[in-house]
Amino acid sequence: MHRTKVKKVVMENVLDANDTLAGANREKFDAAGTYVINMMSSPGAGKTALLERTLDLMRRNKLRLGILEGDVQTTLDADRLARFHVPIVQVNTDPGFGGECHLDANMVRSGLSELPLHDIDILVIENVGNLVCPAEFKVGEDTRVMVYAVTEGEEKPLKYPLMFRSADLVLVNKVDLLEHLDFDLEQFLGNLDAVNPGVQRILTSARTGQGVEEWCEWLEQRLPAHERV
Amino acid sequence: MHRTKVKKVVMENVLDANDTLAGANREKFDAAGTYVINMMSSPGAGKTALLERTLDLMRRNKLRLGILEGDVQTTLDADRLARFHVPIVQVNTDPGFGGECHLDANMVRSGLSELPLHDIDILVIENVGNLVCPAEFKVGEDTRVMVYAVTEGEEKPLKYPLMFRSADLVLVNKVDLLEHLDFDLEQFLGNLDAVNPGVQRILTSARTGQGVEEWCEWLEQRLPAHERV
Repeated sequence: MHRTKVKKVVMENVLDANDTLAGANREKFDAAGTYVINMMSSPGAGKTALLERTLDLMRRNKLRLGILEGDVQTTLDADRLARFHVPIVQVNTDPGFGGECHLDANMVRSGLSELPLHDIDILVIENVGNLVCPAEFKVGEDTRVMVYAVTEGEEKPLKYPLMFRSADLVLVNKVDLLEHLDFDLEQFLGNLDAVNPGVQRILTSARTGQGVEEWCEWLEQRLPAHERV
Repeated sequence: MHRTKVKKVVMENVLDANDTLAGANREKFDAAGTYVINMMSSPGAGKTALLERTLDLMRRNKLRLGILEGDVQTTLDADRLARFHVPIVQVNTDPGFGGECHLDANMVRSGLSELPLHDIDILVIENVGNLVCPAEFKVGEDTRVMVYAVTEGEEKPLKYPLMFRSADLVLVNKVDLLEHLDFDLEQFLGNLDAVNPGVQRILTSARTGQGVEEWCEWLEQRLPAHERV
């Protein structure tokens, strides 16, 4: 029991330090007029593929996007998005203990110096793929968007409630596979509402493009009316 | 930088304590003659579904299985497996900080008192669904089996190498979906070999049953020859 208490105090200290650093990030974002989205999901839910679709569709648009990519190792995701010529920076969490399983405010801060925030209307922070810890660490974001793949099963909102509960929008992705899965969409949405009643959701497929337009409209609406383009 | 160092020391202490507790679990397993598998994966990769198939097939067999289920919340997975009437215990990590994203040796220890180890030949510990942290914590296991769903993409061994590297066997699951995915199996297996050369792998589908027989044979071979049934 004593061990658990010590651990809890350590974690509370870590979270307290993180909140302070998240506040500092926030001030930078506000000063630059940048709206910030913390995008979270399990590994392989399709965050990067959705961002590829997003950046492609947004080329027609004057809204200026930027990306901060979080991964344990490699720059594979940043490399995939580089062809869209938006400001992008990759943060690898590997120097930490065996590879941190989430972004924290300090890691995000370390990436910000590489980004021209004043030229970015919306910054999407693509978090490390993990259904648990990323939700515990604020990074200074305005909003949280969760990507959830229908291949992950119906019951995850009940088993891992924190991220679902803290999301402002859930992109229910890979819906092109629904006909090949034993996945009960109604049951999943019921479980989602059980932990985060009425949370906004958009059915998407990064593969077919379904829902991407609606998601891009949602993005545009994040900006104050006078700034919309 | 100083903060990072402090954090690193804290984590090293946590890991050191964990190793000691894992050793104590190990002694219990050895005394009972129980072989222990730490089964790990991303959330939704199909660990529980594969275990359902496994327990079903193993009913014909005299090998006695037991299950320790790890989840942040709920007993949904244990409930799914209860109908097979094998010893099973659910450990929820929720009492920890916001829900721990992995099992550690102490959590496993807390579940062991509920299991009749002397009546269990092989104990499968189904870890919390997470592609990062579970691999960092030994729980006293003999071997590590990773379940990886083909819906998760080809590049994950490179982005999250630790778990792939520490696995003794990889069950490449959901192969029934291959024809509906843009997933390059050869490329994935190449990435797997890049981080864990020659690691054993079995292509499985919990949905169709493909590969489950081979996986059960692998399980049987874990026991010393004179104990096989």
